[in-house]
Amino acid sequence: MVRGEFDQIARYFAPLAAGAPGAFGLGNDAAVLSPPPGEELVVTLDTLVEGVHFLPEDPPDLLARKALRVNLSDLAAMGARPLGYLLSTAWSSRIDDAWIERFTQGLAADQETFGLHLLGGDTVKTPGPLTLSITAFGSLPRGGALTRSGAKAGDGLYVSGRIGDGALGLLALRGGLRHLSLSEQKLLEQAYRLPEPRCTLGPALIGLANACLDVSDGLLADAGHLAEESGLQVIIEAPAVPLSDAAQSALAEDPELFTQVLTGGDDYELAFAVPPDQQARLDEISEQLGLPLTRIGRFITGTGVTVHDRRGQPLTLEGRGWVHF
Amino acid sequence: MVRGEFDQIARYFAPLAAGAPGAFGLGNDAAVLSPPPGEELVVTLDTLVEGVHFLPEDPPDLLARKALRVNLSDLAAMGARPLGYLLSTAWSSRIDDAWIERFTQGLAADQETFGLHLLGGDTVKTPGPLTLSITAFGSLPRGGALTRSGAKAGDGLYVSGRIGDGALGLLALRGGLRHLSLSEQKLLEQAYRLPEPRCTLGPALIGLANACLDVSDGLLADAGHLAEESGLQVIIEAPAVPLSDAAQSALAEDPELFTQVLTGGDDYELAFAVPPDQQARLDEISEQLGLPLTRIGRFITGTGVTVHDRRGQPLTLEGRGWVHF
Repeated sequence: MVRGEFDQIARYFAPLAAGAPGAFGLGNDAAVLSPPPGEELVVTLDTLVEGVHFLPEDPPDLLARKALRVNLSDLAAMGARPLGYLLSTAWSSRIDDAWIERFTQGLAADQETFGLHLLGGDTVKTPGPLTLSITAFGSLPRGGALTRSGAKAGDGLYVSGRIGDGALGLLALRGGLRHLSLSEQKLLEQAYRLPEPRCTLGPALIGLANACLDVSDGLLADAGHLAEESGLQVIIEAPAVPLSDAAQSALAEDPELFTQVLTGGDDYELAFAVPPDQQARLDEISEQLGLPLTRIGRFITGTGVTVHDRRGQPLTLEGRGWVHF
Repeated sequence: MVRGEFDQIARYFAPLAAGAPGAFGLGNDAAVLSPPPGEELVVTLDTLVEGVHFLPEDPPDLLARKALRVNLSDLAAMGARPLGYLLSTAWSSRIDDAWIERFTQGLAADQETFGLHLLGGDTVKTPGPLTLSITAFGSLPRGGALTRSGAKAGDGLYVSGRIGDGALGLLALRGGLRHLSLSEQKLLEQAYRLPEPRCTLGPALIGLANACLDVSDGLLADAGHLAEESGLQVIIEAPAVPLSDAAQSALAEDPELFTQVLTGGDDYELAFAVPPDQQARLDEISEQLGLPLTRIGRFITGTGVTVHDRRGQPLTLEGRGWVHF
């Protein structure tokens, strides 16, 4: 059974808006929202289609949380703290009340974790696949937004956390990492299914990082975006890329998986450019947040992305592996 | 041919963001947006699925404009002036570059008409039907938002423009109004395909209307929303409902079409509650905007919606027609 739209909104979605006065209990045509004094608003939108961006068998609560977190990661990449979100759901015929209940439980859990509320949205039916779209709102000090285009020659390229767990997690879910222990496979799968948006790191980088984005397309592609938008070249030192223990186990068995690590995406870590004289401030932030912030390369004049091996020699991607030029 | 996502964004969508500095040319993870000083932001979202909310043969430029206007109507209903929007597009396999070009031409035309810009969004592919979602932003003086819940007993119920043209236009498109002249059919079809959001009326009603919404579900349903959210009953005087000349022609031939007029929806006029002593101010606004503002009923203590005939006798809907109790 699927409830009518009004009944569904009242039962499952209105409780998610209870803490936001500007949502009017979802009973209005629109919601009212203001950034805190001295701040401005940041808005982002991500759309997910079943069979393209997620699988029909994905647990509804984890799907809800990932959909929200992907947007929070975009906010963090600009230095914004989360405020609220709008939700668009096009339900396919297979979606029933039990599914919607688990989906909204996932949203409720992450609203609590990240301190934001549902502000409104739209609920329709589709003869096609389940399609979700989230518009997330955050705020940051006026004029402080981190962008992709401010890196300077000489800046270091940094990443938060570990790189590659998301891509390896997807591989593990598809049964491609059976040589790992079950607990290692679970850790990687968890990283894919429930990324950790860097909601506290992003705001801490305002006034410190010259450019920033979140690693969603893959480290190489995203470092390339920073370089291109800043009119520079970026060099990535391959041995410096931080890997989890589980990823190191996977690579010990199959070194070619390093390609997945660099290009697979779904990391939702922040990649950012910081001048060399700011290393001490970065170390402080890293300690405060309990989050590794690793220098993995540098920006120089030029164009494109170059990957260096441990002796500083350029590597190039050929087939599935990395070879010297 | 369909271009790659980055190419498509650069060619078709980035020009729509050119006038909005906070959109960063669509090159970032998110956009920055602030309400003007002293104002707060209003946000709304509408999702449209091909085969559910529009037809595959609908002209792409008109579809784009209607998708935008439906959102602008929601903003107007709260008294907000439009600022910008985010666009989510899930392209089905039939959508090619020529289609996207016409679609974005429609957006460009209405951006010009209503003075707003594209701020960002997401473009994905779907194996299902074309699915569009627009998140629109507007602003209004802080604390001034019109809601559905403020009507008072004794307030008049007013509507802008004419009621029923949208629903009759859909009927005309389906070949159901062949007894009308071609020009009358065209006028009604135009009202359905390209509604006029009341973007100047909405802000003018702040401090004047006690409650407001836009008529999208149908006049009876939407008047019912105002009554229910305000804890009142609403009486609609059937002969007072303003009709266009084309609608009057249609009803002269088939009086039962009055049911369509009252329940069909897709009007995107504003319906609002105003105290009796404000008639003179309403008349001024009507004259300034060149837009009829018609008193069609009143709010009283009680619950529900009642329709009265020209002698003040209650009518009830039976089958396709309206009869006396």
